[in-house]
Amino acid sequence: MTTTTPAMTTTTQADLLSSVLATSRAALEPALRDAVRTRLSPELGQIAQYHIGWADADGRPTSTWGGKLVRPTLALLSARAANGTATDGIPAAVAIELVHNFSLLHDDIMDGDTSRRGRATAWKVFGVPGAILAGDALVAAAGSVLLDADGKGAASAATSLMTATQRMISGQGADVGFERRGDVTLAECVRMAGDKTGALLACACSLGADLVGADPGLVKRLAAFGEHVGLAFQLVDDLLGIWGEERQTGKQVGADLRVRKKSLPVVAALCADGSEELAALYLSPEPLSEPDVRHVADLVERFGGRDWARDEAARQVASAEECLAAAGLPDGVRHEFQEVAGFIVGRRF
Amino acid sequence: MTTTTPAMTTTTQADLLSSVLATSRAALEPALRDAVRTRLSPELGQIAQYHIGWADADGRPTSTWGGKLVRPTLALLSARAANGTATDGIPAAVAIELVHNFSLLHDDIMDGDTSRRGRATAWKVFGVPGAILAGDALVAAAGSVLLDADGKGAASAATSLMTATQRMISGQGADVGFERRGDVTLAECVRMAGDKTGALLACACSLGADLVGADPGLVKRLAAFGEHVGLAFQLVDDLLGIWGEERQTGKQVGADLRVRKKSLPVVAALCADGSEELAALYLSPEPLSEPDVRHVADLVERFGGRDWARDEAARQVASAEECLAAAGLPDGVRHEFQEVAGFIVGRRF
Repeated sequence: MTTTTPAMTTTTQADLLSSVLATSRAALEPALRDAVRTRLSPELGQIAQYHIGWADADGRPTSTWGGKLVRPTLALLSARAANGTATDGIPAAVAIELVHNFSLLHDDIMDGDTSRRGRATAWKVFGVPGAILAGDALVAAAGSVLLDADGKGAASAATSLMTATQRMISGQGADVGFERRGDVTLAECVRMAGDKTGALLACACSLGADLVGADPGLVKRLAAFGEHVGLAFQLVDDLLGIWGEERQTGKQVGADLRVRKKSLPVVAALCADGSEELAALYLSPEPLSEPDVRHVADLVERFGGRDWARDEAARQVASAEECLAAAGLPDGVRHEFQEVAGFIVGRRF
Repeated sequence: MTTTTPAMTTTTQADLLSSVLATSRAALEPALRDAVRTRLSPELGQIAQYHIGWADADGRPTSTWGGKLVRPTLALLSARAANGTATDGIPAAVAIELVHNFSLLHDDIMDGDTSRRGRATAWKVFGVPGAILAGDALVAAAGSVLLDADGKGAASAATSLMTATQRMISGQGADVGFERRGDVTLAECVRMAGDKTGALLACACSLGADLVGADPGLVKRLAAFGEHVGLAFQLVDDLLGIWGEERQTGKQVGADLRVRKKSLPVVAALCADGSEELAALYLSPEPLSEPDVRHVADLVERFGGRDWARDEAARQVASAEECLAAAGLPDGVRHEFQEVAGFIVGRRF
């Protein structure tokens, strides 16, 4: 996963990544638009199209669409990993992207976020009921897309998607529950991150293979690869949520600390011996001042949260590499997996 | 469907209904509790258990549980209709009840309802994020329950459930969309009701048969039966929402008018010639006074909304009877279907 060591990223690699993402977009976009148009009612389809970025609030087509489609690209690769064509993997890719968008739609309501990618969130534009229903419709549509697919593993893939969706929802539920608790252990927090972020990436990396009826051993190794990539991504994201620059993250430095998020580096530090001052500051209900936020960041670092998260991200990347190697893929597909996964976790930290 | 003519309801019939529901509860409750316990995380499971009525807000078991389990009872009957055992139908019944509870959880948030069956709604107790996630988890769990089932029609049943769920969500979306529109046609309104209410009842009446691999013709006839039952129920519910007594409905007389709901009798009257006064009152943004509410009810009646809805409910009941007869079921199962369907639509109107 070369881009985790950014100095090694060459123009050729960047070209490969761009080309993989562009090819996948060309294959996917018509199928994705078709699924939203035919499987959602006009009212809810309009909300979903706005949310995805295809249309403005009045339903007029937009000229640009920002989504990178990394998860569905992994699903197409996984079909090829099992000797299918990318086309065979399209239902898997569409289903993954629908579930991803379902989770974003509901997340924005739950977090009260008013903007996403520089636009008002769907619930701000269409109201909470419409945004809840559009999310519900996307998850039901995702299941149907797979069950209607021709692949001999259609039922197995649908089961895998529903299981991953349940894990993702459980992880989000745990995350919400952690806000009210002062005794979250690091093991619980890692498990929550695996559920919230790892499960859908594991599914994305294996769903196309599952759909084309691949050997269960291969499906399992690809899923394990995706799970490690997801955990690495979450660790990096949590590090950026504390120490990331605004130009990288689009958020203020220390954003996650200000809302007292129980992210992985924070919980790692809270679980260290002698971190009582950190606990007293972070677990109190009083608002944190800006100097407090900086002090909390220093304490998280002093009690090993930053180092642990960096080291753990590196370990997850190494485990992902091992799983990918064990899958015994042809060089071409393996390189593409590495590029896309590197893009997911490869922000500098 | 004898109980639509309440004078005919004899003690024997009431006994049959009680016995059908009690037998089904005994078969279903352990499976339903098991699905919620094993397929939802502890945090979200607690919310679902509170919502269903098994636990209080602190997670302590409650002594009584009010749910009648009519939809899952229909699913068990549909397995028997296809020569399966009631046990064969359990995954279908559990899945239907999980989807039904998913929709109630999200409905309460969307409608801002603060109480259900005399208790605070889940979102009031656990917050909106928890209630959204618990609903999401129930719908994903429902799909998994069917896909994990042994029946040879498991994938077909899962497809049918996802399709019905999508129709139900579309209907709810249309219902929400109608609030902002003054030009809703009766055809649109009937379609919305079919989606919102008919689809899940159609699925309930056919899903057990589908799961045990019944002949598609039988599955189709049972689904058509349920669709008509659903429409009849919705028509009766809409009539009660305007003219129902508080002791029948638990709501104030005219409840639906007060919130300007575009229910079937209202839309039927709005579509009649000469109903301009009704349109002017009902489609204006001004709050309706109590005399206004009574006047609107009179206008809906004068322009034929009440008669149309009564007649249409009777037509739907007759169509349901025809579909059931065409299914060619053994007398025992047919009677039980009639009793449960009669219970659903049989409130006096």
